[in-house]
Amino acid sequence: MRYAFADRVRHLQSSAVRDILKIVGKGDVISFAGGLPDDEMFPMKGIEEAFSRTFQSGKKSLQYAETEGYRPLREAIIERMARKGIKSYSADEMLLTTGSQQAIDLFSRIMLSPDDIVLTEDPTYLAALQVFKSYEAKVIAVDSDDDGMLPDDLEQKLKQYKPKCVYVVPTFSNPAGRVWSLERRKTLIDLVHKHNVVVFEDDPYGELQFLENETYTPLAALDDGTHVLYTSTFSKTAVPALRTGWIVGPYQVIRMMSQAKQANDLHSNSLAQQALYQLCRHFDLDGHIDHLIEVYKGRMEIMVKCLEEANVPGLKFVKPKGGMFLWLEVDESLDMAKLLPDAVSRGVAFVPGEPFYAGKPKKNTMRLNFTHATPEKIEKGITLLGELLKEVMAKQAVK
Amino acid sequence: MRYAFADRVRHLQSSAVRDILKIVGKGDVISFAGGLPDDEMFPMKGIEEAFSRTFQSGKKSLQYAETEGYRPLREAIIERMARKGIKSYSADEMLLTTGSQQAIDLFSRIMLSPDDIVLTEDPTYLAALQVFKSYEAKVIAVDSDDDGMLPDDLEQKLKQYKPKCVYVVPTFSNPAGRVWSLERRKTLIDLVHKHNVVVFEDDPYGELQFLENETYTPLAALDDGTHVLYTSTFSKTAVPALRTGWIVGPYQVIRMMSQAKQANDLHSNSLAQQALYQLCRHFDLDGHIDHLIEVYKGRMEIMVKCLEEANVPGLKFVKPKGGMFLWLEVDESLDMAKLLPDAVSRGVAFVPGEPFYAGKPKKNTMRLNFTHATPEKIEKGITLLGELLKEVMAKQAVK
Repeated sequence: MRYAFADRVRHLQSSAVRDILKIVGKGDVISFAGGLPDDEMFPMKGIEEAFSRTFQSGKKSLQYAETEGYRPLREAIIERMARKGIKSYSADEMLLTTGSQQAIDLFSRIMLSPDDIVLTEDPTYLAALQVFKSYEAKVIAVDSDDDGMLPDDLEQKLKQYKPKCVYVVPTFSNPAGRVWSLERRKTLIDLVHKHNVVVFEDDPYGELQFLENETYTPLAALDDGTHVLYTSTFSKTAVPALRTGWIVGPYQVIRMMSQAKQANDLHSNSLAQQALYQLCRHFDLDGHIDHLIEVYKGRMEIMVKCLEEANVPGLKFVKPKGGMFLWLEVDESLDMAKLLPDAVSRGVAFVPGEPFYAGKPKKNTMRLNFTHATPEKIEKGITLLGELLKEVMAKQAVK
Repeated sequence: MRYAFADRVRHLQSSAVRDILKIVGKGDVISFAGGLPDDEMFPMKGIEEAFSRTFQSGKKSLQYAETEGYRPLREAIIERMARKGIKSYSADEMLLTTGSQQAIDLFSRIMLSPDDIVLTEDPTYLAALQVFKSYEAKVIAVDSDDDGMLPDDLEQKLKQYKPKCVYVVPTFSNPAGRVWSLERRKTLIDLVHKHNVVVFEDDPYGELQFLENETYTPLAALDDGTHVLYTSTFSKTAVPALRTGWIVGPYQVIRMMSQAKQANDLHSNSLAQQALYQLCRHFDLDGHIDHLIEVYKGRMEIMVKCLEEANVPGLKFVKPKGGMFLWLEVDESLDMAKLLPDAVSRGVAFVPGEPFYAGKPKKNTMRLNFTHATPEKIEKGITLLGELLKEVMAKQAVK
């Protein structure tokens, strides 16, 4: 039988890259591809205790629950966010979601009609691009440098395209590892107020900050609660399997998202929400995050050192100030998607940069994750990658 | 600021009924409104042990996981379904979802373009209607009697409307508590094959069967795996808070849904999936379901007895053969939505029948849940409801 799918699934194509990486997950290849935290770092004991406390609270903990999510956890998150300067929201202006991915999806579902425009950085989070496209919206890239979107280009595109929203990952962006300057953040807020557009601030990595003395103020802390939707998650700071993220924003938008969530799944796993509440209250989550930072920063530095020692001509990157990713640019002659099968057969995997681009892709780019592999594997994997790149370039030089 | 929502959210309106019932949840009102199982019946010890076993399996249990869901649980569900005669599917043709609600939503997302047609029973599951409308599809009701859809009307509407799918709850339907006859099930399968349309079989209640000697064959057991999507859930048999449902169907459709799920939330809570797998393997789930049946059947019988004793003129219902709901029809002069505030102020709540209708609503209907309230509360609540109905009718007679 021929199944008559909806028009919108034309945009839901599985990529060749994804298919290769699915195979990688099962083999002995050293993978810098996934966006995975290190399993060994998971606070298993804290999580077990948190569940145990939740079960002790009684059988009601296993019943259907509110679409908006477990209120005490929402309140605990409001407290945590206040310490980062985000103070414009109450628990009524928050929705707990199945990871921050669902926050991106629900927001898009209530906001984007076909042919609506979303402005993004370039490159930007691949799976956000997929969501926008799945609602048949159009994505327009704003020119950026290492400090964030360029104000002139942003304003010109706000005027020209009248977008529905601006999607940004201003702190330790995925994939580029960028951090926006405070000035650019303020300019963005000014411009969206001027042009009456909302910003969707995706901040899954903000807590993984490597430089103690710097401050990266979230956009949500610079706004008055009217123009910014802010999402984050416990996936990188606690554990991914509980799939618990959140979003705060203007009440009207959150309420509409809540109605969409009711249609989508009634509510997310509420046992996990209750356990995470117990974790916030009875476990030293901040101490745990400090430990994560120490370990991940160490791995990032090993990766940087190995990349420098690999001595690959034309290789460029900016040392990450936090997060989970390092973005590499190699000689313009190289197409990293085409080199992926070769790399995998030699025992190392990465994500080619191409699918992260909303505009014209730079094919000579790739994203490397430094949080999942051990230091030994990072050394070995970067050596393999460096050898491959140098060999391919040497061959090209001969031609 | 005025937020420019997408066109599709015109269909996402919170209802007055929902708002009233939200208040009910917080007070002392006896509620027959929610579709809740009884907390006291939750197998807390089994669930705790299942989580404990999962934690013992190691830290990998807390990592990101496959979009399709934990494979051993999918395999365990395949085994359970085979005992009900559903044998056309492998674990590759299954997706684990956040409750069966997400299965309805993802199916609709990949299948329904604006103005596409879905055929349904009438009345039918309210939240499915909301999903179809949220994708701007049109819902057409097929004429039905107590045995299911009427074949002539079904075939006529398959021809006339060329629908994208037929949505049915053939066993202990929500809200009407109907059970389709085997003959009507077979006819439906024949007709959808003839007209090349898929059936979406929603079966959350099938395991809560009160009459031992009857057999209700799922549509999925009558099909060859090409025309039926079948969804069910652990929410009614184990616990709702884990939000774990599943869907099986043709590989092409499941694969497309899996891609949509990746955009929607990457994957559902995988710790819950692993715990439910342990529950299936190490806990007597069938024995537990037998116990649920005994208790819920007892409550249904008390509700039926109280309704008969209430002696309300014009009151009609069919005694449920399973599931969680009893569907009441009262005198034609009564509008149950209008009577709801009165009922709540007297201390009893129900869901008015109107929003369950895809076609012209019968306003003199309501849905009563018999699984959540204790026998004492059922007696008291039905007495209150009966008094209200008789008083209102007596007043009308005076006018």
